[in-house]
Amino acid sequence: MFEWIQKPTLLINQEICRKNIETMVNKANREKLIFRPHFKTHQSVEIGEWFRDFGVSQITVSSVIMAEKFLQAGWKDITIAFPFNLREFRQIKEIKEKCSLNVLIADIESMQFLQKNWANSLGFFIKIDVGNHRVGFSPDSTASIHKILQLANKNRNLIFKGFLAHAGHTYQAKNSNEIKTIHSYSCDVLSRLKNFYKADYPDIIASLGDTPSCSIANDFPGIDEIRPGNFVFYDEMQKQLGSCKNEQIALATACPVVSKNEKRREIVVCGGAVHLSKENIRKKGMQIYGKVVYLSENGWIFPEQEMWVTSLSQEHGKLVVSEEQFPTIQIGDLLGIIPIHSCLTANLFEEYYTLAGKRIKK
Amino acid sequence: MFEWIQKPTLLINQEICRKNIETMVNKANREKLIFRPHFKTHQSVEIGEWFRDFGVSQITVSSVIMAEKFLQAGWKDITIAFPFNLREFRQIKEIKEKCSLNVLIADIESMQFLQKNWANSLGFFIKIDVGNHRVGFSPDSTASIHKILQLANKNRNLIFKGFLAHAGHTYQAKNSNEIKTIHSYSCDVLSRLKNFYKADYPDIIASLGDTPSCSIANDFPGIDEIRPGNFVFYDEMQKQLGSCKNEQIALATACPVVSKNEKRREIVVCGGAVHLSKENIRKKGMQIYGKVVYLSENGWIFPEQEMWVTSLSQEHGKLVVSEEQFPTIQIGDLLGIIPIHSCLTANLFEEYYTLAGKRIKK
Repeated sequence: MFEWIQKPTLLINQEICRKNIETMVNKANREKLIFRPHFKTHQSVEIGEWFRDFGVSQITVSSVIMAEKFLQAGWKDITIAFPFNLREFRQIKEIKEKCSLNVLIADIESMQFLQKNWANSLGFFIKIDVGNHRVGFSPDSTASIHKILQLANKNRNLIFKGFLAHAGHTYQAKNSNEIKTIHSYSCDVLSRLKNFYKADYPDIIASLGDTPSCSIANDFPGIDEIRPGNFVFYDEMQKQLGSCKNEQIALATACPVVSKNEKRREIVVCGGAVHLSKENIRKKGMQIYGKVVYLSENGWIFPEQEMWVTSLSQEHGKLVVSEEQFPTIQIGDLLGIIPIHSCLTANLFEEYYTLAGKRIKK
Repeated sequence: MFEWIQKPTLLINQEICRKNIETMVNKANREKLIFRPHFKTHQSVEIGEWFRDFGVSQITVSSVIMAEKFLQAGWKDITIAFPFNLREFRQIKEIKEKCSLNVLIADIESMQFLQKNWANSLGFFIKIDVGNHRVGFSPDSTASIHKILQLANKNRNLIFKGFLAHAGHTYQAKNSNEIKTIHSYSCDVLSRLKNFYKADYPDIIASLGDTPSCSIANDFPGIDEIRPGNFVFYDEMQKQLGSCKNEQIALATACPVVSKNEKRREIVVCGGAVHLSKENIRKKGMQIYGKVVYLSENGWIFPEQEMWVTSLSQEHGKLVVSEEQFPTIQIGDLLGIIPIHSCLTANLFEEYYTLAGKRIKK
């Protein structure tokens, strides 16, 4: 089994992945939400096609390069959910000429630039900071929002699409209830803003998107569009947050065991920071860089007694296992590592492989 | 200036980089050490050629893929300083057919496998754990070392090259003196082992390699070969360890400023975990993901009042700056980010650019 794997290899459980897509599509349909999944997690043209199988035609990306890539793959309705980068003005213009494009305005200066320089139709969302405190206007910044719209009105090519938020602080939540509280607040903020401006802009929408909220919440009052990304694979961090169960995690890095130390009861795999990323969570007083699973032809088997990656260098990963587990793992074996943060792990590989060894290109 | 930069771009100061190579080459020559630099840091065929300009012909890599890449680029004497991965047996065999190759033995099982299966000449080093506690035999594991050599003797194709160590625990040192103490111990351990086995194996050497030791130490008693890698670029972590000065740091990621928040005095750049990596150090109670510098056509200017990247998401980097600095930085500006760990940052880019905008391919 897996004789074709010689080095760290990113395995995808296609069945789980498609099921994750289907579940989120169904939720969006049930809640009458536009589903505009974020493609930054998988960054794969081929996995993008699996979304199309479920009727998805609108997508979110987080960079101009990704927008170019997915445009080339035939996606014609794209939101770049990253603050408008005026240094990429020319590239954004070129993309816009070939598809329907929305950008994000998080500062007055960016709109001043667009207002002066943009000569083509372009949708824009105003980014609202619902508590993540990364970018965007606080919900009470009425003067700034007013100023943005005033500037946009001077350039008839700029079309106000609505308010957009990313409740990234759900990743710091201690439990599902806290995520639900954040979600309610986000819905409330965005829908109130939308309703306030709806008289002047009847077509505006409220767009929200983070995997914890979209996975855990069951209603989305006042929200028109969701943009989760990570749910396509999920990961250990999402598991800890309560966004998913083990059975929903679609990604694991297969790593060859290359060394064992009996005295320290440590296993070393070929699989380091350049494969797993240095994203980590704190658990039982340790920094954890991945969760270790057994591999079978049907996917991953979660051991009863949890095994963790406790330290990483560029190419090495060190695992701590129990006294019973230690002798069952041999040099030359393969172990699976569930990513802490699948977006960053997926970013480090140029391709995925299915359990049957089929290559899925990015 | 830098009008050609639109998105996160890895800048290399070629002059500093060549100077770093020259300095280490000179030190190795002065100390009569074989210089076998680690190419895992830059991973670049073109930068490899800069080493050749200084007479380097032997290299270290940390993966079979890198060995294949540099073999193809004409390097004919390679040590894979990573525990022998028996799943890559076939690839290692193919590389060996085209060049002089050394592998690393860190476990008896790996040697048992090689002894049975290897039919071609191959150099091997025995990996010694000098305190890093990642892989290798502890210096007093005489029975294991004896066993390895006994096994190797049964297969005349396996050539014992000596003892190799990586004192990676220098990265946890609190100051230069602690690094010197670790270094003295490593030299002592390796040279004692070498001397003990020299009667039976007169050609064996002692090989040591980590950038902090090789940068700070001025003598290498009993050591024959050094294998530092990071020194080619250095970074903020090395600066903190005392391995380098600011003027020796050859790498910075140019990042466009995309958002500002006056109330929180925060700057957001296009430049996140997929550009800088999540490697971090703790400083003044904060997690730090990079050091912010100004860019000039001659390189980086370190501001008197330090500016730091204090949080990262996939594509965003958040900076904390002073009250005086805040108004001087505008949306659309470029800032440089000195990597915390240049190996991981360099790994995330497909190319480098010189200050003059010349592409340096990997």
